[in-house]
Amino acid sequence: MKIEMLFENSTAWPVGLHSDIVVSSRVRLARNLDKRPFPGWAKKTERLALMEEIQGAVEGLPEMRDAFSTRMDKLTLLEKQLLIERHLISCEHAAKSQGSALVINPAQTWSFMINEEDHLRMQVILPGFQLQKVFSLAAQADAALEEKLFFAFHKKLGYLTACPTNIGTGMRASAMLHLPGLLLLEQTNKVINAVNKMGLVVRGLHGEGTEAIGNLFQVSNQATLGEKEETFIKELELIIEQIFQHEMNARTILRQEQPELLLDQVGRAYGILSHAYSLSTKEALTLLSLIKLGLDLHLFPEKIKTTLDNLFMEAQPAHLQREVPNRKLTTQERDHFRATLARARMRFIPQPALLR
Amino acid sequence: MKIEMLFENSTAWPVGLHSDIVVSSRVRLARNLDKRPFPGWAKKTERLALMEEIQGAVEGLPEMRDAFSTRMDKLTLLEKQLLIERHLISCEHAAKSQGSALVINPAQTWSFMINEEDHLRMQVILPGFQLQKVFSLAAQADAALEEKLFFAFHKKLGYLTACPTNIGTGMRASAMLHLPGLLLLEQTNKVINAVNKMGLVVRGLHGEGTEAIGNLFQVSNQATLGEKEETFIKELELIIEQIFQHEMNARTILRQEQPELLLDQVGRAYGILSHAYSLSTKEALTLLSLIKLGLDLHLFPEKIKTTLDNLFMEAQPAHLQREVPNRKLTTQERDHFRATLARARMRFIPQPALLR
Repeated sequence: MKIEMLFENSTAWPVGLHSDIVVSSRVRLARNLDKRPFPGWAKKTERLALMEEIQGAVEGLPEMRDAFSTRMDKLTLLEKQLLIERHLISCEHAAKSQGSALVINPAQTWSFMINEEDHLRMQVILPGFQLQKVFSLAAQADAALEEKLFFAFHKKLGYLTACPTNIGTGMRASAMLHLPGLLLLEQTNKVINAVNKMGLVVRGLHGEGTEAIGNLFQVSNQATLGEKEETFIKELELIIEQIFQHEMNARTILRQEQPELLLDQVGRAYGILSHAYSLSTKEALTLLSLIKLGLDLHLFPEKIKTTLDNLFMEAQPAHLQREVPNRKLTTQERDHFRATLARARMRFIPQPALLR
Repeated sequence: MKIEMLFENSTAWPVGLHSDIVVSSRVRLARNLDKRPFPGWAKKTERLALMEEIQGAVEGLPEMRDAFSTRMDKLTLLEKQLLIERHLISCEHAAKSQGSALVINPAQTWSFMINEEDHLRMQVILPGFQLQKVFSLAAQADAALEEKLFFAFHKKLGYLTACPTNIGTGMRASAMLHLPGLLLLEQTNKVINAVNKMGLVVRGLHGEGTEAIGNLFQVSNQATLGEKEETFIKELELIIEQIFQHEMNARTILRQEQPELLLDQVGRAYGILSHAYSLSTKEALTLLSLIKLGLDLHLFPEKIKTTLDNLFMEAQPAHLQREVPNRKLTTQERDHFRATLARARMRFIPQPALLR
């Protein structure tokens, strides 16, 4: 499978707002080969040997037939950025080159990062709220690989990892939540603080250390030690259900009690996206988030969904740069290009109104 | 003449942006009758006697034929607010009731406030940059009235006034400037500070102590003592010409070098006015100011001028309240009503584009 195919369908999972509130569910498992140095300590030859061994094992999985498999040094900077924007690799993995590799299945639900921080990071991502399913898919790949690779495992500690915070299950489970209703009712911070107090972590669009843009928040479990994976998943599910309920309540209030606030904010977003000549990534995604809220609350006809999903993806920096292959766009040029695109696409979206 | 006629034509001078940069020129003369107590010190009977004497004299001027003449206690609060929004009376005069009066000619260029801070304040206001003309009209009324009324005048000090800052000529000359170009290039403060250093005063839309909204600034002379009226007017003209030139330069830069910044800012204003469901007075006037800039710089066809002028007036609080005579609107209701009106009017304005 060629890399171009990954980027062909701009509504392909995982970017795009396929579920109203819980946009996606994700599990990643960190694994390392026993008695071999972690990627950060391994010498070049050792790292290359590790990479080949793991990459071969992953490619041999039945689920990985026709997969996209590459060494990281074969990827351009732009391709790496595109993979980040589609949540297929981490920012950390994009920084790797020789001695690291990547395998992604055609459906883009499994992503194996080889020699990221650990020897192997398996990620499974699916649209909507289905953490159990996502975990079972990750466990399935984990079990299949464990027959070919000998993972470092300590009886008492569990799976060993390069960073001590991942020791144990080596798992991080997370969900991406779209919370524009809380924003409009100015309840976002209240809810985030409550979640943080419960020991979970709320992060921005691209994980650790990134800013929340487009009203998208990643909620994940922090603990990896002392409990079974299933217990962590259950805990996370319970809390996500609570956040979901808060956002639902906010949306009900907006729709039933404050329709003019809703129309005002969605209308302003519509007006700016339709008429601006310069839009930053952050502003564009925040405005599109409000249009998505408008769609969810029936201010737009259902049929605009594809246009909106496409625009959400197209508006991101690497996806814009991809359209101009001959030269590197400056930030200013990109912001103009983004606005031009938005104006063109918004013509296909009628102005917001209370449809029902 | 009935008061309704003053408000009939919503594009009537003085509100509305009839000149691109120098919106209007204004002169007011403060006069007091000799050996009579100032309004603030006069007893009720004395104030009433003064009012009747002056009101009669003013009504007798040939220019005041068919004028609107009223005692201030006959006006409703709403009518007073409407008169302020049309720059026909000062905020101070609106606060007066028994013992004060008002005479305005049908063309709404002359306004005589009787027993404001002084016994008589004569205001002449005309669209565009014509301070000389405005002064000569004020002087004409002054001379005519001086034949009927005996003004307090001191050989050395000049005309005596209730507040010492007005002693001498009793004149304040000012011009209303529309400076959105300076705003977009972030040069507004630089220019205002320079003007202040030259001893002139820059104020907001409704004069002293008011905020600059809609990018409208009132520039006036502060000195009344030590020079002839003509000298003050000349000084003011020179400085206004300089500010005018700065704004012209900003507009040329925007149009020739930064058309995308211009289109972006005008486009956003267009988008918000067309789609918001709540607009404060301040936001509405600021956005309309950008649409006016767009019109001046040929992003809109000339024919939108009337719609824009109307909307600039209609968007002001008392003008909105006037449309709902039966009950007092809350601020929130007014903001919604303003947005509804803006959305309706904006349908007649095509989206901005570089027309030539």
